[in-house]
Amino acid sequence: MRKTSKVGEIRLIPITLAEEIVPGASIAGKLVEALRRGRQRFHPGDILVVKHKIVSKAEGRLVDLASIQPSAESVAWAEQYKLDARVIELALRESRSVIRRKNGVLITETQHGFLCANSGIDVSNVDGGNTALLLPEDPDRSAAILRRALKKKTGISVPVIITDSFGRPWREGLAEFAIGIAGMKPLRDDRGRRDPHGYELKASVEAVADELACAAGLVCGKLNRAPACIVRGFRYDPGPGAVRDLLRPAATDLFR
Amino acid sequence: MRKTSKVGEIRLIPITLAEEIVPGASIAGKLVEALRRGRQRFHPGDILVVKHKIVSKAEGRLVDLASIQPSAESVAWAEQYKLDARVIELALRESRSVIRRKNGVLITETQHGFLCANSGIDVSNVDGGNTALLLPEDPDRSAAILRRALKKKTGISVPVIITDSFGRPWREGLAEFAIGIAGMKPLRDDRGRRDPHGYELKASVEAVADELACAAGLVCGKLNRAPACIVRGFRYDPGPGAVRDLLRPAATDLFR
Repeated sequence: MRKTSKVGEIRLIPITLAEEIVPGASIAGKLVEALRRGRQRFHPGDILVVKHKIVSKAEGRLVDLASIQPSAESVAWAEQYKLDARVIELALRESRSVIRRKNGVLITETQHGFLCANSGIDVSNVDGGNTALLLPEDPDRSAAILRRALKKKTGISVPVIITDSFGRPWREGLAEFAIGIAGMKPLRDDRGRRDPHGYELKASVEAVADELACAAGLVCGKLNRAPACIVRGFRYDPGPGAVRDLLRPAATDLFR
Repeated sequence: MRKTSKVGEIRLIPITLAEEIVPGASIAGKLVEALRRGRQRFHPGDILVVKHKIVSKAEGRLVDLASIQPSAESVAWAEQYKLDARVIELALRESRSVIRRKNGVLITETQHGFLCANSGIDVSNVDGGNTALLLPEDPDRSAAILRRALKKKTGISVPVIITDSFGRPWREGLAEFAIGIAGMKPLRDDRGRRDPHGYELKASVEAVADELACAAGLVCGKLNRAPACIVRGFRYDPGPGAVRDLLRPAATDLFR
C-alpha cells in the first residue's frame, strides 16, 4: 500500500476513525491506532491536520443546551430569524465582542480572537441538536499536547494544525481555517526573496497554515469519519508557531 | 441523500514549465509538454489548477506602466505611502468600485466582482517592475478555453480552476482563491444531508474551488517554475460552474 511520492508532490492522506471520540479519549491513541489499521504511519516531515471537533469532544467542550437560559434580547433576536436562542446566548457568552448582528447572522470575535459566526459553536454533529460543541479553550495548547503525545507514541515529531470551517466576507461558502498550531510557522515569509526575474517579492507573506487547513478539508468531509489527515511532502518552516500570528490586529484591520 | 463515501487519498502534482509563458503562447501545449517530460499525464477525474499569471501573460494582459498617466489624486495618495502612482491609477481603472482606501491599502471591487488589493494587478513577477500584469478579462472563459484545448490534445476532460493570491479581512497572510472555473461546481452543497448522527447539516455549503486553490498553492510556489498542478483523487461535482457562484452579492455581504 505504501507508495513513495515523487519529488515536489504533496499527498493528503485521510485518517478514518473507527469510532466516535468521547470526552477524555486520547486522540493521539485513536489516530495512531487508525493509521496502523490502514497500514500507514507518520513519516518525518509529515504534518497532521485535525478538525477541532474531535479535539473539542475529547476535551469535553460540550454544553447541554437545556442548561442555557437565554436573555430576553437573545430570545427576541432568535425568534425573528427562527434560530435557537440558547445557541445565540452561548455564542455571546463565548465572545469577546459582537462584530455584526444582522439578517439573522451573528459574527463575533471569540475569546481566542477568531472572527466567525456564533463564536464557532457547533450543534450539527452532536446528538440530535441538544448539545453544543465549543471550540477548544486554547487550541495552540491542544495542538502542542497532541504533538507531544504523538511524539511519545511514534517517536516522530509532526507539526499539528487544528482547524474549523468559517464563512468568509465577500465569498460564498465555508472554508477551513487554522485555529491552533504547534511545531511549524503558520506564515511563510517570502519578502526580500527574488522571483525568477530577479524582482524582489513584496507582498508575499503566505498563510500556509490556512492553505494546509483547506487542503485537509478536501479529504476530511463532514459526511465521513475522517476528521484528520496527514499532509506529506510540504516543506514547512519548523519552529514555534502560534495561531495569533494569523490574526490581523484590530488596529490594522479595515473590515471590522 | 448520498451514501457516506469511502475517503481516499488526494495527490497534488506540480507541473513545472521549462520556460516563461509569452503573449500568444498555448498554455495547453506547454502543460501537456511539461507533463510528458515528467512522465505524467492527465487521468480521468483529475482537476487542473493554474495560477492566473501564466493565463494573463498568454492572453497578453500586460500594461507598460510608462504609458499610464496617473491623476493628481493617485499621485498624492501614492506619494503619501511610497507607492507607484501608476499602479494605483491602473488599479482604479480596472475597478468597478473602491471598497477601502486607507493606510496605504487600496481594496477595490474589480470589473469581475472580486474584492482584492489593487484590482489584482501584479508587478512582482514581470520584468523588473515596469510592466503590470492584469487579471484575465473573463477568467471563466479562459478556464473553459483551456479545458477545451486540453480535451483536444489529450482526449481527457479536466475541470480547470484559475487562481490568484488575495489578502483576507481579519487574517494575516495571502491565500489562494479561485477566480475562474470550468467543468465543475465551485460549491459543494451538503445542506439537507445527514451527518453520522442523523443530524441534518445546516450551514454546510463548502467553497471547494477555493480549497482546491489553496491546496494547489502549497505546491505552486512563487519561487519555483510550477504555475500549475494536478489535483488527483478529489470527487468533484461535475457540471457547469462559474466563479460568480463564489461571490457573495453586495446586498447580503455584511463587510463592504
